[in-house]
Amino acid sequence: MKLNWSTLTRPSVLVDRSKAQRNINTMQAKAAQARVALRPHFKTHQSIEIGQWFGTPAHTPIAVSSVTMAQQFAEHGWRNIHIAIPLNPRELPALNSLASYCELTLTIEHEDTLATLQRLRHPVHVVVEIDTGYGRTGLDWQQHPRIRSLLNALAAIPQVHQRGVMVHSGHSYGAEGEAGIQRVHNESSARLMELLQMLPKPEAADEQRGFRVSVGDTPTCSRMSSFPGATEIRPGNYVFYDLQQKYIGACEWSDIALAVACPVIARYPERNEVVVHGGAVHFSKDAVETPEGRIFGQVMHRTEHGWGAPLGEAQVIGLSQEHGKIRMPASMVRSLKLGDLLVIVPAHSCLTMAAMGDFTAFDSM
Amino acid sequence: MKLNWSTLTRPSVLVDRSKAQRNINTMQAKAAQARVALRPHFKTHQSIEIGQWFGTPAHTPIAVSSVTMAQQFAEHGWRNIHIAIPLNPRELPALNSLASYCELTLTIEHEDTLATLQRLRHPVHVVVEIDTGYGRTGLDWQQHPRIRSLLNALAAIPQVHQRGVMVHSGHSYGAEGEAGIQRVHNESSARLMELLQMLPKPEAADEQRGFRVSVGDTPTCSRMSSFPGATEIRPGNYVFYDLQQKYIGACEWSDIALAVACPVIARYPERNEVVVHGGAVHFSKDAVETPEGRIFGQVMHRTEHGWGAPLGEAQVIGLSQEHGKIRMPASMVRSLKLGDLLVIVPAHSCLTMAAMGDFTAFDSM
Repeated sequence: MKLNWSTLTRPSVLVDRSKAQRNINTMQAKAAQARVALRPHFKTHQSIEIGQWFGTPAHTPIAVSSVTMAQQFAEHGWRNIHIAIPLNPRELPALNSLASYCELTLTIEHEDTLATLQRLRHPVHVVVEIDTGYGRTGLDWQQHPRIRSLLNALAAIPQVHQRGVMVHSGHSYGAEGEAGIQRVHNESSARLMELLQMLPKPEAADEQRGFRVSVGDTPTCSRMSSFPGATEIRPGNYVFYDLQQKYIGACEWSDIALAVACPVIARYPERNEVVVHGGAVHFSKDAVETPEGRIFGQVMHRTEHGWGAPLGEAQVIGLSQEHGKIRMPASMVRSLKLGDLLVIVPAHSCLTMAAMGDFTAFDSM
Repeated sequence: MKLNWSTLTRPSVLVDRSKAQRNINTMQAKAAQARVALRPHFKTHQSIEIGQWFGTPAHTPIAVSSVTMAQQFAEHGWRNIHIAIPLNPRELPALNSLASYCELTLTIEHEDTLATLQRLRHPVHVVVEIDTGYGRTGLDWQQHPRIRSLLNALAAIPQVHQRGVMVHSGHSYGAEGEAGIQRVHNESSARLMELLQMLPKPEAADEQRGFRVSVGDTPTCSRMSSFPGATEIRPGNYVFYDLQQKYIGACEWSDIALAVACPVIARYPERNEVVVHGGAVHFSKDAVETPEGRIFGQVMHRTEHGWGAPLGEAQVIGLSQEHGKIRMPASMVRSLKLGDLLVIVPAHSCLTMAAMGDFTAFDSM
């Protein structure tokens, strides 16, 4: 379906299906070549429709970041779901219900969760989250004895059918360029390999079911070609990419598959600014930190049925609840009329989709 | 209704109705004393239920920040609605439909919108937005001739039944303490008064219907007691307040009526941190900038049926999509169990409500 600009009245998320599908295919080919399974992280889009672009739900293993999302996708046919956030004991009833008909993977990183696992009524897979440098969640990779004993404890819980570890090198989002992504990847991989070598040889049960080693974040999965020690990669953002990914060198402008169309509501050539209807409730307030300040989005050249290259120096420099302030050369401001639509690539497409929910998909190719 | 902690499983917005109702009443009394009309800004809560706490919908004039919100409230009985964002010409069909049964106020700040107003099929009220220093939208207060000619043009449009001006001193959100709020208010009021004196005497039509002068933002409306030149105030955030308002001195801790309950999912006494389920999709990413860095929320003492004072130095220092990272003393970290609920006052309650939508209301008093 082609994009019809005249139907857009309000701030609208646009998803270029041609580019998204190409991103999906590229990552599938990358995983096949690297001989790892691909488990796309669906927190990026949280959409049943877009989820189906990845393949038949029943045959697509996915990751999500909340039990709520797991329930949504399970209701629509996905059956192999990794809830990639540390287990919240309060979710036990919902997990029991999901595990009754889904192949569920849970994430833990603390001994206190073992009691919850023992109260499950159905088999699950459990991975221990390892922190190889990001510093958010997970057991520090150097805590070998603790990681070992946690994995041993899991082996003794009858409900736990497969064990493994997971890593999320989220600090790759702060990398500078492909060399920076490479550095994060090398360090994280070396730490993971060192840990894996310290773990006991897989037991018979693990050999049969496989010991899962799940890694992944969009920058490293996009730019690296091998994933030492991993059996699976788990990127999410790559389906859309965004300004942040472009800024750190994880994608090209032409890979970005999501933008927000925003109507111009005020023009100030005297201060090189326009204001659009399109604010924090549409973009979220994530930003790319640049030497010139925080940037919330980049305006793109509008084409007949989509968008092209970035529009020079036109960038979102401020967001309040419903207003977006855009800095651009005065000549550009003068060329715009009230009601004109600006196409803006957001800093962080995952949060933009979460904020907006609804979207217009179109085919640019 | 009392709050029942045991029913909360996931990140949940909690609204203390007792405090919200007190905030609503306090502002109503303030407006009455200052002899201005009160038109609460409903963008803060976007909720039909909470909207009803302000009084009977049919008798409560409100402000909103999008046509979407105007439609939602109009569908539920509100009949006097100011869409306090510059007119987007693409909304003409929706505005025509709303104006057919609502007393609608539109906001303009550019001559190009006059053509759109002429195409309306029903009477509306129109205010010209004036910028007295915030620098977002509105005509600069010093552009007397332009403001005058725009008001004159409005007088010539038959659909325009009432005219006026509006000001939003949003830079009060960056004030430091009550003295800072006072400075913003004094400057903004002086500029508005100067402008009003430059405008021609109200015409007969204006004298009959009143020339509207609408001002308002939560910090000045909360801390100031007179609003020179204004016929109406238009604050919104005051129903809940939040960390930002407390930080700039617009409210007390005990006034804050909204918090987010988040389950603990990871504990790190060794680095003085816990991680909760509760991230950017729940809080949004607005922050209070402090000398110690960006703070996204403040943890509060949990009480049997609500919350009390701030919990020492426990603050949200990082948010990713679903994770919130909280810095707190190690002893406090050790006292927490996985699944425990932390009650967190967000930096910006408007964006938190917009992100979450759903909420649990309870009565603490």
